Amino acid sequence: MKNILPSPLQYKNNTLYFAGIRLDTIARNKRTPFYLYSKKTLRHYYEYFSKSAAKNGIVSPLVCYALKANSNKDVLSTLKTMGSGADVVSVGELKKALKAGIDPQKIVFSGVAKTEDEIRFALKCGKKGIYSFNVESIEELDMINSIAKKLKTRARVAFRLNPRVNAKTHKHISTGNKTHKFGLLKEDILEAMDVAALWTNTNLVGLSIHIGSQLTELNATIKAIEELSKLALKLETPLEFLDVGGGLGIDYTAEERSKLASIDTYMKAVSDAFEKYYYSKTDHCPRIVFEPGRIIVGKMGVLVSRVVRTKISDSNHFTIIDAGMNDLIRPALYEAYHEVLPAQTSKQMIKTDIVGPICETSDCFGTGRKLPKLNAGDLVVIDNVGAYGQTMASTYNERQIATEYFI
Amino acid sequence: MKNILPSPLQYKNNTLYFAGIRLDTIARNKRTPFYLYSKKTLRHYYEYFSKSAAKNGIVSPLVCYALKANSNKDVLSTLKTMGSGADVVSVGELKKALKAGIDPQKIVFSGVAKTEDEIRFALKCGKKGIYSFNVESIEELDMINSIAKKLKTRARVAFRLNPRVNAKTHKHISTGNKTHKFGLLKEDILEAMDVAALWTNTNLVGLSIHIGSQLTELNATIKAIEELSKLALKLETPLEFLDVGGGLGIDYTAEERSKLASIDTYMKAVSDAFEKYYYSKTDHCPRIVFEPGRIIVGKMGVLVSRVVRTKISDSNHFTIIDAGMNDLIRPALYEAYHEVLPAQTSKQMIKTDIVGPICETSDCFGTGRKLPKLNAGDLVVIDNVGAYGQTMASTYNERQIATEYFI
Repeated sequence: MKNILPSPLQYKNNTLYFAGIRLDTIARNKRTPFYLYSKKTLRHYYEYFSKSAAKNGIVSPLVCYALKANSNKDVLSTLKTMGSGADVVSVGELKKALKAGIDPQKIVFSGVAKTEDEIRFALKCGKKGIYSFNVESIEELDMINSIAKKLKTRARVAFRLNPRVNAKTHKHISTGNKTHKFGLLKEDILEAMDVAALWTNTNLVGLSIHIGSQLTELNATIKAIEELSKLALKLETPLEFLDVGGGLGIDYTAEERSKLASIDTYMKAVSDAFEKYYYSKTDHCPRIVFEPGRIIVGKMGVLVSRVVRTKISDSNHFTIIDAGMNDLIRPALYEAYHEVLPAQTSKQMIKTDIVGPICETSDCFGTGRKLPKLNAGDLVVIDNVGAYGQTMASTYNERQIATEYFI
Repeated sequence: MKNILPSPLQYKNNTLYFAGIRLDTIARNKRTPFYLYSKKTLRHYYEYFSKSAAKNGIVSPLVCYALKANSNKDVLSTLKTMGSGADVVSVGELKKALKAGIDPQKIVFSGVAKTEDEIRFALKCGKKGIYSFNVESIEELDMINSIAKKLKTRARVAFRLNPRVNAKTHKHISTGNKTHKFGLLKEDILEAMDVAALWTNTNLVGLSIHIGSQLTELNATIKAIEELSKLALKLETPLEFLDVGGGLGIDYTAEERSKLASIDTYMKAVSDAFEKYYYSKTDHCPRIVFEPGRIIVGKMGVLVSRVVRTKISDSNHFTIIDAGMNDLIRPALYEAYHEVLPAQTSKQMIKTDIVGPICETSDCFGTGRKLPKLNAGDLVVIDNVGAYGQTMASTYNERQIATEYFI
């Protein structure tokens, strides 16, 4: 039972509570499905993450929360108040971060397809533009340099190194392999350093890596930090920061629960790796930037849904709920596992498939799950959906986007 | 080259035209990416489909267009004008169909999770409610009967038979197997017929099947019609209609192009199967209902996108475009193949991966595709996206929903 990450869910006398309040009380008069988030849990994870960085000797840590995981405005304003920066991947995300009051000098801009308009906006926001463009190709650096020149300013850039490692995660979200679209190979970065035309209006201020999402073990991360460090030592430019990216996973399944690296383990590994491969070999002392997403918001949220009806077909039992793949696409898209928990437990359990209303077989939240025999109107929650839940929702089948509520 | 389905795309002198107009002219001053539809192509497919039904001796065909494929309001009003009915799967779709002026008596309501509110709305719309609830479980029939009783009306219902066939298509969209959530087994339907309490306020007016989507061959369809017919003959109630569902595929790939059943082949097969298994054995003469989606709208549309930049990493060439998996999720969700075509062809082609701006490796529209060497700002189209394109779009990564334009 080690490594269980705190969750707002708790059973008392067979009744499900969320953040200390009975789920059925919360759901009363609310249209289902809806997303339900715990601000306390959100705060816990941000605070734990940043304190763990400090505790483990990380140099001047800057946490840039990855908006793609959940860009709800209350999430952003809460994190802003706690001191968070932002990792954004589009001008839409950048605008939301700014609107939440996040200091542009705590914002990094990632992504392979930054457009001219997006680069211009990022250079002009605030007094000095954003903290850094995490550059994914030489062609992008060239564009940033040209636009900065036109605007008579200087852009702050970091190369995203492709460290040629293969993160053990779902193929859709592993991003550090050499055949992936992300980042630059070491050779290309070194070559670019010598091309004066790329640097007339840009300052290289950092190097970054990001090897994937929902990582549960740290070998690939340590290897990537080694590569990042080696390259940083080779560069003659003194860097302001080294950016270790995001990707630390959460426990969706019992198996993950048993093997998942904790935040402290992760921080110690990152700290040790930078000490071993970088700080011990130089006098320079760049700060460390983190881009966590899922680990900050993943556990804070559930999707609350009501049973529409059950159905028996031959030997198959179906629990049909009013949440669908349009509300939460992770099971259909990544074959992701999410616990489905009833508002009331019972000793008598049945095996059932939990399916949604969408007319696709992939609209299924779990097969052969053990649940009490539920009736129309009964509440269930789909757990651990604070990250990559509502942010990926669609109106497929002309369904409404689920509302988000905070406790 | 048989079975090539008409498309609005055409090259003249190496330049791409859409519905007879140069693509670059159409795209001028439009924000990319955007969906582009041809009304002429839409009309062609609806007309061809309904004429083919008549030509092949289908009895009083009723075409209920499946809104889930594309619920754009101009699509609906065009189809309405041509006489189409609608197959809806939510009250949201039902309201859109009604708003387009489609007669409630041409609307069937499918889906496993119809809620009380949805059933009430469908019973009360128009003068006589909708044409039919395609009932997916006994529990649903019970709910419909109760609500009709309260409203002092009678509901028109059809059973959706689960014909126990395995359609050859992607596992996400194959829907006629016995372990799927859809439809009722024959035994359960026969048993329900004798339960008087289910029928106080419902009339059984039809039987339906729907075995999946993007079907390219007809054996499973014919087998399912045989099962449907056998059951219809067993019932003592005279039925008003037999509903053969939808699912006829289009040619996304060259392989599909060579083997795809044409509309005429499909209609002949359906007509022959009903003649053989049903009409030749009874004096009853129910009409045939179709629920086509993809075959009506799939070929009419493209997603127009601009190249943001290209990128070379080791031996890999990437063409980065401004359309992403949030705009079109089919490649990521179903591993679906879509042609990517340049606005200008060239004799010199390269092999490239076409990727989008989203920070996931699955945000990829094709690997190793042959394309000319493109530059920033060049236009490409992703072909055959009229169905399950915009309707599944999300704002993931805080991106805007792509606008839809009609020519």
